[in-house]
Amino acid sequence: MAIACKTADISAPEGPAGYSCKEVSAVTVNDFVFSGLGVAGNTSNLIKAAVTTAFVNQFPGLNGLGISLARLDIAPGGVIPLHTHPGGSEVLLVLQGSICARFISSSANTVYLKTLNKGDSMIFPQGLLHFQLNAGKGAALAVVSFSSPSPGLQILDFALFTNNFPSELVEATTFLDDAQVKKLKGILGGTG
Amino acid sequence: MAIACKTADISAPEGPAGYSCKEVSAVTVNDFVFSGLGVAGNTSNLIKAAVTTAFVNQFPGLNGLGISLARLDIAPGGVIPLHTHPGGSEVLLVLQGSICARFISSSANTVYLKTLNKGDSMIFPQGLLHFQLNAGKGAALAVVSFSSPSPGLQILDFALFTNNFPSELVEATTFLDDAQVKKLKGILGGTG
Amino acid sequence: MAIACKTADISAPEGPAGYSCKEVSAVTVNDFVFSGLGVAGNTSNLIKAAVTTAFVNQFPGLNGLGISLARLDIAPGGVIPLHTHPGGSEVLLVLQGSICARFISSSANTVYLKTLNKGDSMIFPQGLLHFQLNAGKGAALAVVSFSSPSPGLQILDFALFTNNFPSELVEATTFLDDAQVKKLKGILGGTG
Amino acid sequence: MAIACKTADISAPEGPAGYSCKEVSAVTVNDFVFSGLGVAGNTSNLIKAAVTTAFVNQFPGLNGLGISLARLDIAPGGVIPLHTHPGGSEVLLVLQGSICARFISSSANTVYLKTLNKGDSMIFPQGLLHFQLNAGKGAALAVVSFSSPSPGLQILDFALFTNNFPSELVEATTFLDDAQVKKLKGILGGTG
Amino acid sequence: MAIACKTADISAPEGPAGYSCKEVSAVTVNDFVFSGLGVAGNTSNLIKAAVTTAFVNQFPGLNGLGISLARLDIAPGGVIPLHTHPGGSEVLLVLQGSICARFISSSANTVYLKTLNKGDSMIFPQGLLHFQLNAGKGAALAVVSFSSPSPGLQILDFALFTNNFPSELVEATTFLDDAQVKKLKGILGGTG
Amino acid sequence: MAIACKTADISAPEGPAGYSCKEVSAVTVNDFVFSGLGVAGNTSNLIKAAVTTAFVNQFPGLNGLGISLARLDIAPGGVIPLHTHPGGSEVLLVLQGSICARFISSSANTVYLKTLNKGDSMIFPQGLLHFQLNAGKGAALAVVSFSSPSPGLQILDFALFTNNFPSELVEATTFLDDAQVKKLKGILGGTG
Repeated sequence: MAIACKTADISAPEGPAGYSCKEVSAVTVNDFVFSGLGVAGNTSNLIKAAVTTAFVNQFPGLNGLGISLARLDIAPGGVIPLHTHPGGSEVLLVLQGSICARFISSSANTVYLKTLNKGDSMIFPQGLLHFQLNAGKGAALAVVSFSSPSPGLQILDFALFTNNFPSELVEATTFLDDAQVKKLKGILGGTG
Repeated sequence: MAIACKTADISAPEGPAGYSCKEVSAVTVNDFVFSGLGVAGNTSNLIKAAVTTAFVNQFPGLNGLGISLARLDIAPGGVIPLHTHPGGSEVLLVLQGSICARFISSSANTVYLKTLNKGDSMIFPQGLLHFQLNAGKGAALAVVSFSSPSPGLQILDFALFTNNFPSELVEATTFLDDAQVKKLKGILGGTG
Repeated sequence: MAIACKTADISAPEGPAGYSCKEVSAVTVNDFVFSGLGVAGNTSNLIKAAVTTAFVNQFPGLNGLGISLARLDIAPGGVIPLHTHPGGSEVLLVLQGSICARFISSSANTVYLKTLNKGDSMIFPQGLLHFQLNAGKGAALAVVSFSSPSPGLQILDFALFTNNFPSELVEATTFLDDAQVKKLKGILGGTG
Repeated sequence: MAIACKTADISAPEGPAGYSCKEVSAVTVNDFVFSGLGVAGNTSNLIKAAVTTAFVNQFPGLNGLGISLARLDIAPGGVIPLHTHPGGSEVLLVLQGSICARFISSSANTVYLKTLNKGDSMIFPQGLLHFQLNAGKGAALAVVSFSSPSPGLQILDFALFTNNFPSELVEATTFLDDAQVKKLKGILGGTG
Repeated sequence: MAIACKTADISAPEGPAGYSCKEVSAVTVNDFVFSGLGVAGNTSNLIKAAVTTAFVNQFPGLNGLGISLARLDIAPGGVIPLHTHPGGSEVLLVLQGSICARFISSSANTVYLKTLNKGDSMIFPQGLLHFQLNAGKGAALAVVSFSSPSPGLQILDFALFTNNFPSELVEATTFLDDAQVKKLKGILGGTG
Repeated sequence: MAIACKTADISAPEGPAGYSCKEVSAVTVNDFVFSGLGVAGNTSNLIKAAVTTAFVNQFPGLNGLGISLARLDIAPGGVIPLHTHPGGSEVLLVLQGSICARFISSSANTVYLKTLNKGDSMIFPQGLLHFQLNAGKGAALAVVSFSSPSPGLQILDFALFTNNFPSELVEATTFLDDAQVKKLKGILGGTG
């Protein structure tokens, strides 16, 4: 690790190890401080949930440091739908409410499921499908940490149903029915 | 890398960096040679396709070396359904026939789709959803390489529909209809 | 990353990449869930503060995943004294109260200082001296994340003044006065 | 891994982790597809063999992904002479013909030698001297995978005998005879 | 590792993995040779010691190679005061004289102390507090190696007492007395 | 890095990341101190040179730390013949005498050659062929550092001519003459 390298110059090109660094003389304490996780996300949406990320693109001081954060707000009845983080492992800590969480291992498609309450934390290893669902009556709030400044987020439904990829190929490779695919494309804005 | 460390002792415990190594004196050239990829996989199954892996568990000499292989046999009409490799990136090389392949990026759910013929290769970055589908009239054959001796394999349908995880939680976190979930559980052997 | 490797067998020997793994068949969801961060630490001590760790030794599912957590409880007037984490970078998120935090860069001993309120997060890069001090009137609470399952913790005063290392060598290598060293050894339990 | 980073901008400077990335908006599926391995290399040369590489310089989508490929064409009587890949381990899969391959371990100069037929694969760990020699009567073809997008290739004879490095220093450090060195320099184009 | 990448272009921006590389055609043998460690450092200073670094900033050919060197000159009565290298582990080899060295582990603040003579080497793991003190009557000389091209150096006294950080915060987070802090600030040039 | 992990238990199995660790309670300062580099190697041999290694097998405290050392003694007329370190980069520092050193890059078989005097250091990147030759009238002495606790050492002549590998295969893959191969096998103890 190049210790003299501090915060990302996010206007510069990104490489496989992260962004180029700002000149040390231009770095201030504000490059290492982020206030965006203190604000509740807007859950007035289809999933009744919001993910507020403090990845390197929002928090440039994380550049090259192997860590990032996010905030999950899940309204009653809300869910962070089945998704993966292709670039990092996750640990979730419940700050408020009750969350039902699951991941599926790759070795034998074993399901690991738990209902978590305030103060409980749970691990979701890199790249494995998982979800978080509000299991209580009030709003749920969690902070999640990742083992990468840029862990990525791929939500299954958004990957399948928000683009114009031909429905017949979705169906051939997921075994979902045509009506099901077209119904979800209709809801999520996809075509084709 | 500990150069003196050769082939995995797969009867010993595994750690985060791989298996413990066999004694150097017990290592022979056969630890570095594998013939299993020369045999066609059995495609008489639901997906009309077979994945034959040469991961570290089958090919112990790969231990700690950051690479592995697999062979894909896809009969006419066959498909390797939507899946991810949580532990490594993949490069596919078509050896016979024609394969339609796709992956979905995590940045904006952009779809990268291509029909590949003999001699074409295609990259599937770590952890991203992708599939391979026979796009021709005859059998298709490909060799795939991974950037890990143990890249893992998580097929979406098997993760969702082969276990006894409650259907209502599948539905709540994928927005699939109850009938669709139960139909696929029926086909793939899941319950609940 | 060996994806099949799940949770640490902390009774087995540790290697440079972490612990040997439990047999997959012996792994349960409880290996991935930890409730210890839900309990306030005991701050009735010299520093009026407590660090509750969820490192791999307490939370074996973190083995090999490049991440861990801790909880900081800092009573009014309390402080996490000047310290480093030799094995990982840290991100702190204030959950309650107000915390004054600082780290010192290695390039020119520049000081980065900020008073953080609820919802603010701050980065402390690997190995750099830093502290957290209650800057408010009530108790302060923070969750901290690390880029390693075993980041370590070296508190300066405990390193210098809790052992029986000869005072004259402490003095020769820190330029502290003999009276100062002996006073702090008296408080912190050191001798010599 | 910075997941948003896709394909190399090979006109930009290279760093230790790879090339800077193209803008995401400029990336197309063609950055992830390469057809060059479908074409037989020209074996009308001294070694009666050809190595066609799909390293990051030819296949920019490999940037930062820890993997690359190459194609070996070896005419009857041909050989890939003794060489190393200083930057990555290799796995070879025979697609046609018969190949005799060898590597020499560093621990005790043990030789691992095998004649491989179609469907056989063999591992050559990073940095160790190895060769591949056509062991049959017809042309041999193999695909090789590497654990790096830029594994390098250092062929012993080319390193020793194609430049103008003084023969006496070659002799002093290899114990080869002067006549032998000058003969091979004559064949391979070196001087001095 | 990108093998084609040679020496740092230290006028280009630095990234987390190091500097951008010079064009291969501009690289000469002088990029891989450094003579600065042949010159004794000036020990006419407060600590009667000098550290001459061959880090990547002085020796650009080290870029991306995971190693660097330094030379320690310690006059009679001199000391390299308590310090850490946040970015790398160190091995010291005594070339002349006698050196008393110590490091403090993070697990239980255990002290590892040894007096080293010519030909002795000692390890100081990454990020742990340590010092080197002339234990003989003549000048001492050592060469030290690091596991990073940019290991950093944070000397405790310089971090605490050479800047204008408020003394009361130093005192609150180290438990040093006000008089002690102000005395050392006076000696080392700090204020506040 | 697992900070609690200290020194190797070299009687335990080795894994890809190194040896299992000794119990912390069994670790002493002597695990971190090595005196073997203070003793001149015996240069009364064919190459008039000796390499004394402080790799992890000799110096267990290096386990997992990414660094090791060695001592080169080269008598007048002596040479460390052409060789590679497959597992790490090297930096050499001349302590006495004069050494002519060379490495050959993999990009275009460019030769980097320099005569080094006391105080000069030179870099040899991982896996590249290089040598060191006494260029003066007296004995030469150097300390070399590696970016791995187990960098390996593969001397070309020993790899080719000390075993019973068939001469005809050596000849076919190096283009050396039969007489040359048999002559060197005779000198170095090989057969076949």
